[in-house]
Amino acid sequence: MKYPYAHRMQYVNHSAVRELLKLGSDPGIISFGGGFPDPEIFPIDQLRAVFDDVLLRDGKAALQYATTEGLPALRQKIITRMQREGLQLNLDNVFLVQGAQQGLDLAAKMFIDPGDTVITENPTFMGALIAFNPYEPRYVGIPMDAEGLITDLLEDALKTNPKVKFIYTVPDFQNPTGITMSLARRRRLMALANEYDVVIIEDSPYRDIRFEGESIPSIKSLDTQGRVIQLGSFSKILSPGMRLGWVIAEAELAEKLCLLKTAADTQNSTMNMYAADRFMDMYDIEAHIASIRKVYKKKKDLMLDAIDEFFPAQVSATNPQGGLFTWLTFPAHIDAAALMRDRVLPEAKVAYVPGAAFFPAQAEQNHCRMNYSCMPEEKIVDGIHKLGDILKSVQ
Amino acid sequence: MKYPYAHRMQYVNHSAVRELLKLGSDPGIISFGGGFPDPEIFPIDQLRAVFDDVLLRDGKAALQYATTEGLPALRQKIITRMQREGLQLNLDNVFLVQGAQQGLDLAAKMFIDPGDTVITENPTFMGALIAFNPYEPRYVGIPMDAEGLITDLLEDALKTNPKVKFIYTVPDFQNPTGITMSLARRRRLMALANEYDVVIIEDSPYRDIRFEGESIPSIKSLDTQGRVIQLGSFSKILSPGMRLGWVIAEAELAEKLCLLKTAADTQNSTMNMYAADRFMDMYDIEAHIASIRKVYKKKKDLMLDAIDEFFPAQVSATNPQGGLFTWLTFPAHIDAAALMRDRVLPEAKVAYVPGAAFFPAQAEQNHCRMNYSCMPEEKIVDGIHKLGDILKSVQ
Repeated sequence: MKYPYAHRMQYVNHSAVRELLKLGSDPGIISFGGGFPDPEIFPIDQLRAVFDDVLLRDGKAALQYATTEGLPALRQKIITRMQREGLQLNLDNVFLVQGAQQGLDLAAKMFIDPGDTVITENPTFMGALIAFNPYEPRYVGIPMDAEGLITDLLEDALKTNPKVKFIYTVPDFQNPTGITMSLARRRRLMALANEYDVVIIEDSPYRDIRFEGESIPSIKSLDTQGRVIQLGSFSKILSPGMRLGWVIAEAELAEKLCLLKTAADTQNSTMNMYAADRFMDMYDIEAHIASIRKVYKKKKDLMLDAIDEFFPAQVSATNPQGGLFTWLTFPAHIDAAALMRDRVLPEAKVAYVPGAAFFPAQAEQNHCRMNYSCMPEEKIVDGIHKLGDILKSVQ
Repeated sequence: MKYPYAHRMQYVNHSAVRELLKLGSDPGIISFGGGFPDPEIFPIDQLRAVFDDVLLRDGKAALQYATTEGLPALRQKIITRMQREGLQLNLDNVFLVQGAQQGLDLAAKMFIDPGDTVITENPTFMGALIAFNPYEPRYVGIPMDAEGLITDLLEDALKTNPKVKFIYTVPDFQNPTGITMSLARRRRLMALANEYDVVIIEDSPYRDIRFEGESIPSIKSLDTQGRVIQLGSFSKILSPGMRLGWVIAEAELAEKLCLLKTAADTQNSTMNMYAADRFMDMYDIEAHIASIRKVYKKKKDLMLDAIDEFFPAQVSATNPQGGLFTWLTFPAHIDAAALMRDRVLPEAKVAYVPGAAFFPAQAEQNHCRMNYSCMPEEKIVDGIHKLGDILKSVQ
């Protein structure tokens, strides 16, 4: 039968990410495509002790329903960690979500009427576009440079576009480019949001994975008017398979977003909330994060060194100070998607994410996103070598 | 600041369920209000062994991202269980959701344009209304009798209402009434859906918890045209805190709904999917479900016997053959919400859910939903006794 879809369904289509998540699970491929953490750094033995302790001591509560906001003890630990970031929060400002991805869906559901404008970096996180699309926004993409989103161009966009509901940004080690927004740009972004009365969604799942340079204040820490929604996640610092993200917002905003979560799925896994909380009681999560940084720093250096060695000079790569990704720029005539389909996958058995899908507007074809966190070290070198050979052959 | 909400936000408000879930967690109250399973029946020791085994043998995979559809092995087990129900399914027909509640949100997002008509039983599951409301449907509520939704009245509604997108029903031990739809009504419902070309959402989280009488074929098993979406859940047969529900639908429909899940939250907890799958490998879930039925049968009988003994004759209660709820009807002049606020909570320290919130249309004030699964046996008797004393005093 033909189903009576809502008109929004025309904006719902197969995503490249979804297909790539499937591809990345083929062990025969050296995949730089996913955004997977390194499974070698999962604290498996510690989590065995943690889950056992939770079930032994709190089994009845951990297997039962909980409130939508999520376990107060875990929210309190998030608040305590955020104090180091200069954020003074209380329990009304924080609730748990099913990965930061759910925060994107809830924010879009809350703010976007069809035809409203959403401003993003250009390129931006593909998963955000996937979350926003069903609510039918118009996108305005702001170009980036080495300091992140170019705020002069943002001002132009705010002047000329009506009904801007929010600015979406990944300021730390952006997905896909690996670029970090400078403090000056963050201040200007915040001032412009205040001036033009728009909300900012600060999506910062990689913030704790800084392995070089000095931490830059979060945009939320510059927010004096309660207009920044900050999204965080345990996916990169503990485990993505536990699906624990959080939303930080001014209390009224947090309450409304949380009501939308009640409607969407009632709550996160009680079990996993207990486990994350207990993990932080029993072990030192800061020490664990420090060990992740060390591993990713090494892998990032390995990938960038291999790129230096094996890639032709006409291919450039960003040099991220944290996070999971570097962003390649090929010579303008090379279409990264076609190259992957025709040469890179069949000949080199290597995968990346062609860059075009990350652009909400004015897509450029000659980029790709490369993940360095997931593959073992020898496969990083091997994959870059093979990719380099192909890139040299198409110069 | 004042936030630029989407116009749909006017349909998002504090829910009675959410407040009651909070209330139910106060240990000083005898709460018949929630929809909580009995925590005494959670297989805690077994799940300790299960989580340990999963982390020991599959830790890297269980803590990692997975595909949106969910673990194939677990979906296959759901398919195998559904074969006993006469459903021939394959992996394309089944995907995991964050509790059946998420299935409601995804279906609403897929089908409802503002102003479309949604037909439900009157009363119906409050969580469904909470999920549907942000998409701005018009509701048409169909009265029920002892055989469930009155299909003659459904036909009238289908004749007179344009743009009916779907019929939402809880056919087995309905939440809130405990009523089960007869086979004749299921057949008629299916025939009418075919005739008027509408989709049916069959929400059946309690189906396995039948403790009396004979199982009645599911509506999905009567579906020859792929127009029934069936929602199921591990919440009542294993653990709600693991947040594992599933959607069964025709392949094209399932694919589209699953894309909406990718947008909403990417995936369920990989860890919990592994744990449910492993539980069914290591233990006999059918034996576990049989033990739940026994406990709930005893509690239901206890509550109904206590109602017989302590309630005035003018108060009637449904006698469910399964599930978690009975539905009380007070004399017409009694407002169940006011009575709870003014007498039942302060004097008896007893909670129920006042019935009005379950009606999408033509709300009746003189009902309440009573849960018998969660409270210990002695509290069931004590609470009914105290509630009975108050009901006698207001006759």
